[in-house]
Amino acid sequence: MTDTRLDVLCIGNAIVDVISATDDSFLEREGLAKGSMRLVDADEATRLYRNMGPGREVSGGSAGNTAAGIAMLGGKAGFIGQVADDQLGDVYAHDIQSIGIEFATPRRPQAEAPTARCLVLVTPDAQRTMNTFLGAAQNLTVEAIDEAQVKDAAILYLEGYLWDPERPRAAMVKAIDIAHAAERKVAFTLSDTFCVDRHRDGFLDLLGQGRVDILFANEAEVLALTGEGDLDTAVAAAAAKVPLLVVTRSEHGALAVEGGRRVDIPAEPVAKVVDTTGAGDLFAAGFLSGQAQGRPLDESLRIGAIAAAEVISHYGARPEADLKALVAERLG
Amino acid sequence: MTDTRLDVLCIGNAIVDVISATDDSFLEREGLAKGSMRLVDADEATRLYRNMGPGREVSGGSAGNTAAGIAMLGGKAGFIGQVADDQLGDVYAHDIQSIGIEFATPRRPQAEAPTARCLVLVTPDAQRTMNTFLGAAQNLTVEAIDEAQVKDAAILYLEGYLWDPERPRAAMVKAIDIAHAAERKVAFTLSDTFCVDRHRDGFLDLLGQGRVDILFANEAEVLALTGEGDLDTAVAAAAAKVPLLVVTRSEHGALAVEGGRRVDIPAEPVAKVVDTTGAGDLFAAGFLSGQAQGRPLDESLRIGAIAAAEVISHYGARPEADLKALVAERLG
Repeated sequence: MTDTRLDVLCIGNAIVDVISATDDSFLEREGLAKGSMRLVDADEATRLYRNMGPGREVSGGSAGNTAAGIAMLGGKAGFIGQVADDQLGDVYAHDIQSIGIEFATPRRPQAEAPTARCLVLVTPDAQRTMNTFLGAAQNLTVEAIDEAQVKDAAILYLEGYLWDPERPRAAMVKAIDIAHAAERKVAFTLSDTFCVDRHRDGFLDLLGQGRVDILFANEAEVLALTGEGDLDTAVAAAAAKVPLLVVTRSEHGALAVEGGRRVDIPAEPVAKVVDTTGAGDLFAAGFLSGQAQGRPLDESLRIGAIAAAEVISHYGARPEADLKALVAERLG
Repeated sequence: MTDTRLDVLCIGNAIVDVISATDDSFLEREGLAKGSMRLVDADEATRLYRNMGPGREVSGGSAGNTAAGIAMLGGKAGFIGQVADDQLGDVYAHDIQSIGIEFATPRRPQAEAPTARCLVLVTPDAQRTMNTFLGAAQNLTVEAIDEAQVKDAAILYLEGYLWDPERPRAAMVKAIDIAHAAERKVAFTLSDTFCVDRHRDGFLDLLGQGRVDILFANEAEVLALTGEGDLDTAVAAAAAKVPLLVVTRSEHGALAVEGGRRVDIPAEPVAKVVDTTGAGDLFAAGFLSGQAQGRPLDESLRIGAIAAAEVISHYGARPEADLKALVAERLG
């Protein structure tokens, strides 16, 4: 592991997922684009919640899921994200702290905004369609960034979703600058094609300014970012903008490009894909764990694939099996 | 189905389950009796929650689970139970209403007591150990019993757990008397052996007064109630006290005794038992659904076994599969 106190410090939207099994006709009736994440306001969240079926509440949030994966793989993880002083805030803080993640972001009053929730609709094909009410999460300010904590982490990991709300965007840039001043690595995920469409210029600026050392994307996101029509061209174009590019390809595996060298790996076998929520988040967790352990690219990619395969085999975006044991068994 | 507006009206503690996978050593360290339900106060709930692992929140409560099962089997179900006007109260109300259950109990202020939660610790052997903080649930009063609703249900179903808190006990007795005055059936479950130990005299009085028409128990509970040492003797003794006795026997199936006639059925096959929380609740749901459909005892028992088998195959005490389709497939 790294010689810093933390291997990875993740910053992201602190969100409780409300997961509900549904069918395609419900998505059609509600006019929802399958597989996407959209932001909803309180009224729309209430309306959609009223129409959807029973849910199970599980802590989520992209970077929070990644932190959970890193901790469950035996790494030292931290998390910064904003919850309110309400019951869902209790749930979020409990879940993240109970697996050994350092989480000390002071809560904000529920009266200002309640803890964020994401209404996750899972169709029989295991795809998830997400409707996020950001609530308190959008009120993460630069003051919530603990400078010492950022300096104490070998890698700072940020989610592209965090670019959506205004104040967290500034907090993220501040954290990047602290990390780089302390000669730490900065990793960033593009999160979602719609997110890339909303913030392409901002994301390209981050890359152009050298603010990102490791970029995570899936196939659709790397195509959206580069505007290229085929994957290989898009990968080459994106890899030219960042020292280390990691692209996940669902059932086709994953690849990484570093210093002009490209490594491809196949996907891990999964008996039954139940809910793809968190696949990318857990892939990032596995990859970053491998990097923190000083493993080569191909092994880091495989740990990512093993962690992703676990999380898509059940409902919810946090691992349930013993990830460390799984990696030891499959990778040695 | 019945000619009343509702097939079954369930009254019980309205509880959100916080389900966490754990191991036997955790139960030992905490001094918890595996498989039991104990009541905890707010301080103990907070302490235990702090020590336990990450959870998933799913609406539960014994009679609430039974109502959910009945609704998902196509029956018309109602539920009476007390939640607070807090986020977990929102979750509870949403989950029960979203599957078509009539639920109109007015909420009480969170400042009085928050919505009840049950910390459910599930060990690798699929047994659940429950720690219930009753919160708002113990403040269900007789005023919450809607006389018209009770009269409109063919069967009133009550959980033994409801005998623990003082005010709901009175509410339960009032509901029984309304139901019987309207010539409705009253069903009652003994809930838990510790619950029987706490309230044996109260339960025997209910039976002696003819206030119960259908009694549900598992093997341990029927032994505890009657004080007999072997199952057949205990079943005969309990059957003498109630018109219809139903006893669940886990992997040994179930039996019913009515008018001196005993019917036994085997358990349904389950690929993998994950979490036994809710097995008894869903058995009751299936059995009562069968009765409401006018089916014979053996078929009612089998619907109970099918519903129980579904709920123990995953975490959480509410059905996830299409129970109606399952019953149609297995029973015709």
